[in-house]
Amino acid sequence: MGRLVMKFGGTSVANIERIQNVARHVKREVDAGHDVAVVVSAMSGKTNELVGWAQQTSALHDAREYDAIVASGEQVTSGLLAIALQALGIQARSWQGWQIPIETSDAHASARITGIDGSELIKRFKDRREVAVIAGFQGIHQESGRITTLGRGGSDTSAVAIAAAIHADRCDIYTDVDGVYTTDPRVVPKAQRLDKVAFEEMLEMASQGAKVLQVRSVELGLVHNVPVFVRSSFVKPEDIDPHGTPPGTLICSEEEIVESQVVTGIAFSKDEAQISVRRIEDKPGVAASIFGPLAEANINVDMIVQNVSEDGRFTDLTFTVPASDFTRAQDVIAKAKDKIGYERVDTATDVAKISAIGVGMRSHAGVAARAFAALSERNINIRAITTSEIKFSLLIDAAYTELAVRTLHTLYGLDAKT
Amino acid sequence: MGRLVMKFGGTSVANIERIQNVARHVKREVDAGHDVAVVVSAMSGKTNELVGWAQQTSALHDAREYDAIVASGEQVTSGLLAIALQALGIQARSWQGWQIPIETSDAHASARITGIDGSELIKRFKDRREVAVIAGFQGIHQESGRITTLGRGGSDTSAVAIAAAIHADRCDIYTDVDGVYTTDPRVVPKAQRLDKVAFEEMLEMASQGAKVLQVRSVELGLVHNVPVFVRSSFVKPEDIDPHGTPPGTLICSEEEIVESQVVTGIAFSKDEAQISVRRIEDKPGVAASIFGPLAEANINVDMIVQNVSEDGRFTDLTFTVPASDFTRAQDVIAKAKDKIGYERVDTATDVAKISAIGVGMRSHAGVAARAFAALSERNINIRAITTSEIKFSLLIDAAYTELAVRTLHTLYGLDAKT
Repeated sequence: MGRLVMKFGGTSVANIERIQNVARHVKREVDAGHDVAVVVSAMSGKTNELVGWAQQTSALHDAREYDAIVASGEQVTSGLLAIALQALGIQARSWQGWQIPIETSDAHASARITGIDGSELIKRFKDRREVAVIAGFQGIHQESGRITTLGRGGSDTSAVAIAAAIHADRCDIYTDVDGVYTTDPRVVPKAQRLDKVAFEEMLEMASQGAKVLQVRSVELGLVHNVPVFVRSSFVKPEDIDPHGTPPGTLICSEEEIVESQVVTGIAFSKDEAQISVRRIEDKPGVAASIFGPLAEANINVDMIVQNVSEDGRFTDLTFTVPASDFTRAQDVIAKAKDKIGYERVDTATDVAKISAIGVGMRSHAGVAARAFAALSERNINIRAITTSEIKFSLLIDAAYTELAVRTLHTLYGLDAKT
Repeated sequence: MGRLVMKFGGTSVANIERIQNVARHVKREVDAGHDVAVVVSAMSGKTNELVGWAQQTSALHDAREYDAIVASGEQVTSGLLAIALQALGIQARSWQGWQIPIETSDAHASARITGIDGSELIKRFKDRREVAVIAGFQGIHQESGRITTLGRGGSDTSAVAIAAAIHADRCDIYTDVDGVYTTDPRVVPKAQRLDKVAFEEMLEMASQGAKVLQVRSVELGLVHNVPVFVRSSFVKPEDIDPHGTPPGTLICSEEEIVESQVVTGIAFSKDEAQISVRRIEDKPGVAASIFGPLAEANINVDMIVQNVSEDGRFTDLTFTVPASDFTRAQDVIAKAKDKIGYERVDTATDVAKISAIGVGMRSHAGVAARAFAALSERNINIRAITTSEIKFSLLIDAAYTELAVRTLHTLYGLDAKT
């Protein structure tokens, strides 16, 4: 007897047959005695169709209207799943974001959840054992009364936020992979599924290019301490032992992981562009003069490397941006040239970022140094390095991505034994 | 300078190009200085797709979930049209039924509008000249907070109800025909478009099988005295003279029609089934014992003919039901046999109903008698007759439908002169 949130993504609800399959997954948990809230995405392809229509109508479309259009996808799935559950004899009703309500900021198309009132859902668990089928990805900005959406992948965030609001014991994310791997198995066939991973590690892995979960949902799991379990939605519900431990990865607090590896996973991203601003006057406020305008333009700057200047007068500053923002970032820097005061800008787009992540790094010295040596042996040139408490990232030529990932995966003992 | 509601159906918003065409129609009226509220249906085919999914999920689906699913179609169109209007430089925003709110009963899938608060829309007309783009066909049941829909064709009803709520001067229904005709032009090529038709006449024509407008919307127009103008959405907006009188049919109060015909139009319906209950004991309450159970089963009974019994003991009762309800109606009558007390039931499904409609009948005697003579000359047998103040209906063998319609159309002088 517990309380569960179950989240199903677009491919898991792509057609009626799959929605009925999802209903059987839910029935399994209801039969096991759990209170269940289900969070669903739009049927796969639907969101793209809706976004396409909005863009076709006008390239510069009102984000408030975009949200009203796009949120309809989840609305449909929530109703269909409620019907599918009722057909299995389960009490169920659909909830749109504005009905609960899931309150958000007014940052349309990328709104943040500011509050969820879970009381009615909890009341219905108790009074009628009613399953709540909740449209993910959306909410309402109370002041304007308008529908908001949380941005791509937002249904993960909805799920974890709802889990926190209804005091769920766990949030199960059903997806098209059966868990979080040490790295992308398509690149490293010896990659292994992790049984457990710490929130902090998953945060780094998600933001470093592992696409299993939206970063924001992991943040919420960390803040509210909601264990998040990533598992496959393509297993037949009938094949799951309700009392056993299904395959998957539990994202949980560090304390619950008894034996942690030094390095838990290797993430990588090829969608990076490097911008180096050369011979900037080395004076206070120069970083702000560069990154201020970039932030205003909503460009996400990732790695930032600034060398101590040799002569105390000029310095070089290198940073990376998503490849999709590269042209805009160049424009911003060019326009701010007078204000920043630099000699020239060098750029590179054929670059990749490789990151090694593990909470064990906190207590182990020299972890990154071993990587430098191993990569050097393979003649892989490191363009830039950044480090944090539980991660280090290396910028290299994109051509070496796979080789570098495999090298580090082996180096840190992550290869499967077989 | 006035206030207009413009309603566009599914074929008029079937794709982005047509939505942009609709936006130009709206712009024309805004440029002419009008306050405009636009009511839109779902893109054609979308509602069928959504209904299909609901049925595929479970044949016996929860009407509340059905409504949540199906209402999403209009939500999408309203957002897209708002974007298309903004792209033309027009202030516009989308409104879902729950946002205005359009309050309805809780009869999900066929809810009735109980109230609309038009104050915010009017305020925005005044403050910002903002066009309201309203999702048709839907509302909210306030007590449960759930989305309702008005049933098929409900967007017409939404449009007229909104016109009443915002005190519009006129409600323009843009559709795939350019007005209301004296009869179906596919059956009678000499059918003519009517410039004006009285609400009462249109009510009879709509409920008698002319499919231009939903009956409920005409009722609302009559009650709130909102003139409804039926016109084509396929005329290019650029080809319309904003100061001229566009082609179409104005549905208005009788007083505004100076010179009225005795008969305004001929309607017909082939989707009829006839049920004759024979040798019923002729005592008080017998009609109630038949039509009570049919009403409970939600079967719409149309023509009812009861002859005065010859001997004062037994009578025959004939009525028609929609062909789709025929089997259910037979069941209901069979089950109530003991309570009603009859000898047998005769039925016919190959029947059609022909109606002649005109407010002028009130002041002209012998209008129906001329029809009986003309049909008899053509050897068309009349199975049953009902009359009202402004209409008479004849039940005939379906095979004679077209012949009978053409005969009456000519008889009452409705043929175009060419």
